[in-house]
Amino acid sequence: MKRIDALKELAFEKKDFDAFLVANESNLLYLTGTPGATCLLIPKKGENTIYVYGVNYEQTKAEAKGFEVELLKRGEKLGEKIGPGLKALKVKKLASDTLSYELHRLLAKAIRGHAKLKVQGDLVHGLRKVKDKEELNRMRKAGEITVAGMKAAYETIRPNVTEIEVAAEIEYAMRKKGGYGTAFDTIVASGIRSAYPHGGCAERKIRKGDLIVVDIGAIYEYYRSDMTRTFVAGEPSDKQEKLYEVVKTAEEEAYQAIRAKARGEDVDQAARKIIEDAGYGKYFNHGLGHGVGLEVHEGPGLSPISKDRLAVGNVVTDEPGIYIPVFGGVRIEDSVLVKQRVSEKFTDGFYSLETAR
Amino acid sequence: MKRIDALKELAFEKKDFDAFLVANESNLLYLTGTPGATCLLIPKKGENTIYVYGVNYEQTKAEAKGFEVELLKRGEKLGEKIGPGLKALKVKKLASDTLSYELHRLLAKAIRGHAKLKVQGDLVHGLRKVKDKEELNRMRKAGEITVAGMKAAYETIRPNVTEIEVAAEIEYAMRKKGGYGTAFDTIVASGIRSAYPHGGCAERKIRKGDLIVVDIGAIYEYYRSDMTRTFVAGEPSDKQEKLYEVVKTAEEEAYQAIRAKARGEDVDQAARKIIEDAGYGKYFNHGLGHGVGLEVHEGPGLSPISKDRLAVGNVVTDEPGIYIPVFGGVRIEDSVLVKQRVSEKFTDGFYSLETAR
Repeated sequence: MKRIDALKELAFEKKDFDAFLVANESNLLYLTGTPGATCLLIPKKGENTIYVYGVNYEQTKAEAKGFEVELLKRGEKLGEKIGPGLKALKVKKLASDTLSYELHRLLAKAIRGHAKLKVQGDLVHGLRKVKDKEELNRMRKAGEITVAGMKAAYETIRPNVTEIEVAAEIEYAMRKKGGYGTAFDTIVASGIRSAYPHGGCAERKIRKGDLIVVDIGAIYEYYRSDMTRTFVAGEPSDKQEKLYEVVKTAEEEAYQAIRAKARGEDVDQAARKIIEDAGYGKYFNHGLGHGVGLEVHEGPGLSPISKDRLAVGNVVTDEPGIYIPVFGGVRIEDSVLVKQRVSEKFTDGFYSLETAR
Repeated sequence: MKRIDALKELAFEKKDFDAFLVANESNLLYLTGTPGATCLLIPKKGENTIYVYGVNYEQTKAEAKGFEVELLKRGEKLGEKIGPGLKALKVKKLASDTLSYELHRLLAKAIRGHAKLKVQGDLVHGLRKVKDKEELNRMRKAGEITVAGMKAAYETIRPNVTEIEVAAEIEYAMRKKGGYGTAFDTIVASGIRSAYPHGGCAERKIRKGDLIVVDIGAIYEYYRSDMTRTFVAGEPSDKQEKLYEVVKTAEEEAYQAIRAKARGEDVDQAARKIIEDAGYGKYFNHGLGHGVGLEVHEGPGLSPISKDRLAVGNVVTDEPGIYIPVFGGVRIEDSVLVKQRVSEKFTDGFYSLETAR
């Protein structure tokens, strides 16, 4: 309920809404503690009410503590269901965290004449940026599980193994370490596809001399981790070593810059400067990092256009890369907890192009 | 390009739009053949143009054949980028497949005064309901991979093994069979959580006599499969056997009803009647099934409120269930290709509560 109270303060004290409708899946999980709710209505005065379809009704009743739970019947429109309740509660200013164009239209129609609707996406996402102790424990565990997966990659990668076979060993190791699943589709991108930041994973056999970008994450009790390492199958070339050293230095510089009150733009620049000075600026074609938590991409952002300032309890990725078309790519990434001075890596180790074979 | 041509006919001949903007992720993959595009603009006359951010630019250029590819700069707003082009093309009636409320507002603003914008979500989703031969080959393979995962569940489930350990063996077997990842979060829900249709998978140790619902799917080259079986750890009770027989009969009856021109509502009723007649109607708390393809939930739908009629080339799930709070649940599910008369199961086997141990 601490999270609900924090949202109520933002929405009803700092802003002057008198009801808040939560519809984003991760926001619902964050506020109710259970998956499967369709939406949550938090009125300034009155009961916090979860609306849920029959398929998830029993689970929500059992797992969501301290909420009213209302059953949505098959085919029942959300607007029709909550419109009258909003009227009875005399809601005049309703806010929502996210709405599709279609749902916005239906809901606005249902409350027309007695209340106004505004999409206010930043409130719950803002709260989620700062993780509490319990969330950090889960994320630390997700980090440990992910490192076990990276160890499996380090031990499996060699010429003639397919990318999918490497992924098999990574994911098996993460499950064996207690993982609840993958935080996103596992990337094992070798050869020319290592130069695609989202290169995926296919039946391709790894060849001697390939760069292989391994970007993986585990889930532990709904919380996610994100980690990338780059390996070479066999002996690295001088150019591969050179690229690797540049990216490694950039990652380390940014890590040193990650602390409370640092600006997202400045942390990005700490890494970007190293890569630009080495002459590879145009090959670093994405922002340095993003927040991670219930979603693998959330706030705050680290990029040249970020307006965010870091705070204690944020968890962000630090992931510079150099991607040279046809030649291949190098990326190194850790998930980092922002602290007052020296931040904490949730993922660590395997900082070398070398594999076990 | 056949898919683009089919969309152009729907949007520009049958409807009178003069440009179509594709923004849904799976629709983009369907039409461009590559992941990572931000949007695709298809004008009635002129070049089909993919808009993509730098991070995915090289991959899109290499993999998307027959499209113009435009780079979106960091922080560049989509409306600002495509607004002037729409004006130059003299677009008057723009349609889009899906838009968030915010993006709709931005885009409507960018074209105000010279074009109208309408969200028309059914066109590309309509095309996707009927799979072509290449799509069906991939889905058949995804089905085979999923069956290999179910075999692993059958061989692993026994008292004192955790749900996560079972998931580890399932996912490893699917990867070893060539799977590109899981189609959705693997469900191994035992004990009272077997009565939650979306019960997930946790560190809980399976106990003797538990019902265990195993709901899994593999991806093969972007296409998904979906399959559920229910097992008992140890000897099934009479009541467990009874529930199982009812669900199995319901699944089979619905399978017999799945053919071209059948109504989604009637196929659902074929299964629902069996369960209602056995006295468990109120415990079957979801629709019978859904389409599957690039997404695990897509059209057409099989449920009491479905307005869909099946056609050759649809792939749908057939998944009745009975969920008794506290006691536990039983669900059996196959992915089925709709044919003229006798439809084809992409998933088959393991129709028994018994495991290998």
